[in-house]
Amino acid sequence: MARGRDFNLYKLLIKWYKFVHMKKNLVKRIFLDHASATPVLPEVLDSMVPFFSDSFENPSALYKEAVLAKQTVLHARKQIASILKALPDEIIFTASGTEADNLALRGILSEVLKKSTNTQKNHRPNIIISPFEHSAIREVVAEFVKGGGTVLILPLYPDGRVKPEDVRKLLTKHTVLVSVIYANNEIGTIQPIKYIAKVIRHVNKFSGGKKIYFHTDASQAANYLNLNVLELGVDMMTLDASKLYGPKGIGMLFVKRGTPLVAQILGGGQEGGRRSGTENVPAIIGFTKALSIVQRDAQKESKRLTRIRDMVIQTIVADFPNSHLNGSALHRLPNNINMCFEGIDAEFATLKLDVKGFAVSTTSSCEAQSDDPRSIAVEALGVSGCAQSSLRITLGRSTSAGDMKKFISTLKKVLS
Amino acid sequence: MARGRDFNLYKLLIKWYKFVHMKKNLVKRIFLDHASATPVLPEVLDSMVPFFSDSFENPSALYKEAVLAKQTVLHARKQIASILKALPDEIIFTASGTEADNLALRGILSEVLKKSTNTQKNHRPNIIISPFEHSAIREVVAEFVKGGGTVLILPLYPDGRVKPEDVRKLLTKHTVLVSVIYANNEIGTIQPIKYIAKVIRHVNKFSGGKKIYFHTDASQAANYLNLNVLELGVDMMTLDASKLYGPKGIGMLFVKRGTPLVAQILGGGQEGGRRSGTENVPAIIGFTKALSIVQRDAQKESKRLTRIRDMVIQTIVADFPNSHLNGSALHRLPNNINMCFEGIDAEFATLKLDVKGFAVSTTSSCEAQSDDPRSIAVEALGVSGCAQSSLRITLGRSTSAGDMKKFISTLKKVLS
Repeated sequence: MARGRDFNLYKLLIKWYKFVHMKKNLVKRIFLDHASATPVLPEVLDSMVPFFSDSFENPSALYKEAVLAKQTVLHARKQIASILKALPDEIIFTASGTEADNLALRGILSEVLKKSTNTQKNHRPNIIISPFEHSAIREVVAEFVKGGGTVLILPLYPDGRVKPEDVRKLLTKHTVLVSVIYANNEIGTIQPIKYIAKVIRHVNKFSGGKKIYFHTDASQAANYLNLNVLELGVDMMTLDASKLYGPKGIGMLFVKRGTPLVAQILGGGQEGGRRSGTENVPAIIGFTKALSIVQRDAQKESKRLTRIRDMVIQTIVADFPNSHLNGSALHRLPNNINMCFEGIDAEFATLKLDVKGFAVSTTSSCEAQSDDPRSIAVEALGVSGCAQSSLRITLGRSTSAGDMKKFISTLKKVLS
Repeated sequence: MARGRDFNLYKLLIKWYKFVHMKKNLVKRIFLDHASATPVLPEVLDSMVPFFSDSFENPSALYKEAVLAKQTVLHARKQIASILKALPDEIIFTASGTEADNLALRGILSEVLKKSTNTQKNHRPNIIISPFEHSAIREVVAEFVKGGGTVLILPLYPDGRVKPEDVRKLLTKHTVLVSVIYANNEIGTIQPIKYIAKVIRHVNKFSGGKKIYFHTDASQAANYLNLNVLELGVDMMTLDASKLYGPKGIGMLFVKRGTPLVAQILGGGQEGGRRSGTENVPAIIGFTKALSIVQRDAQKESKRLTRIRDMVIQTIVADFPNSHLNGSALHRLPNNINMCFEGIDAEFATLKLDVKGFAVSTTSSCEAQSDDPRSIAVEALGVSGCAQSSLRITLGRSTSAGDMKKFISTLKKVLS
């Protein structure tokens, strides 16, 4: 009898727990920070699983399973190459977009500094960048400057874009590299990569053999934009799987044949001697699957999200008196909404939105490490008072128009 | 009726397929190359799965899920620190053992070269290493030498070990760093890390403040040996998850507080500013789980594998006239068998063993990239003719005594 009563009590407890848990889950969390991270798609995870415990062998070994692993990696490399219209040996797998950015810049700049003996300021090698590159680019550039190089920063226009003509104006015969982010990670403005490449190509034609290289970080662009490197005309391009519904811990650098890239991680000579370390087979497979999916769906998703994005922007501008969009409405990632709400404390607003079930941000996660919550990109736009009063709302595959309507009505409560 | 017949045919087809598949699987493959890769343990994969698609957020963001991700990473860091008897902020997650080795060496050496202005050979900064370090160490040392540094190589004794007294003899006032692999990746000999550390500590005591740092690559040691950094007395230690039944794409460097390490990947300032890039949360969780398991089982597995290992060595030495063990039988990883079979072509033998269902190797996978199949470690032992005639057979958690008996009988056929 006693045992029966205990058992019933136990069942009751479980019921109560489930009820509470259900109630808790009724407050659906809405994730609106897809620029900082994306969930791994179920089919991507499925594609990775066989390579953890079953086909786990080191691709560099010589027996059957290892040869299969090597072929698997080669097949993935070919698939990615065919999406980018590149050659398989132009793809270098790295552990992140950050590492790929480091490899691109240091891979070119480190040798240049060693060779440069001229100490006159105007004769030092220089790099041209936009004022709102990812921290991975900015930090490597800072190191380059510390080591004796020079940086030339492109002006940013009110629409959040740089201009190819300015690249032409800044280029000197000491320019080694130009690096411009394809779509900015904070305000989502799309840069005229193709036209910048044209300017550089033109200058290279008359430089008597000395080549200026062009790199772009396409981490934020990959879900929606054209990644055809032939059409873009870039020499190097960074991608990061964790921003395109693939796993964390894997990125890549496209490097055009003939680009004199110096390896940054030395050892067993994997990745054609340009990046050592055992190939991360499951992550490479997952990355490839994810890139295939997002590029297949790019047009459809762009159309769907652009409609939602524009609805949100229009509603906010209409309903919040002192609000405006940061950067171009036209040349903009379909999933990026970055609004200035004059006078508000954006960091405090994100915390209040968090309590209400919405995950948004004020700046790039890679900036959030510092205690300074200001947005680099919004600051670069130069609109006074906006760098600390702007919210970055980035949509994704799971975002619906209904989610955004809920978001706007919550935002009204939070900011009132 | 027709449909019924089709259905029966279909069932028959499935039966036939299953039968063929079963027959195929009857030839059990036996994996004996655990020094090159280990399968992810099922419980390790289970621990990782929630962090791919569900808890996927970027630990650097500010909302609830991101804060949870940050806590998850911190908890993992604490767990690893407690296994190593280190502090959580002494753990730097990297994407591989190779990257950790690069970080350790370049993190110390790059600044030293910049500061060093003395060009006299004997006054240049130097590093002391064993002659059979992993390629990640050897390549960074080669770069250091190219940049103006000097390398001093410890003599190797016939038992495959270096001697602490030799470290004492080689140390000069220009020595910056000593790096000795904890257990060699090819011949599995365990080095006297604790005693080398003692020698260095003693010298540091009387150096008037100038400190010589000591690094060890413990990637091969982690499954069986003591990783207590206080007892070992090292300043830096490399681990690689893919060698200890964790996932590929994740490693770590222990760095003792106060060690002036310079970051090698720049950007968002993750890992306390010493290694940028979004934290690879699932891999960090898997690494932590795997390290906990292998260190928990280290004694039991060591005992079990030592018995199997010694049985194999004794049988081979008895049954193969011109065979001998490379390196010490005593100071040896429990899972490492590396035998010289005088006069045989080891690479050809591995291919024949592969056909018979056994995966073994001749050298480290990170050496197999090159076309030179010689074993660095066996060559360093200096026994003539063995570098191309040695097989590396490395056991693991799935290896049974029965597997090894089968292996020996196959080996007899292959080498006869």
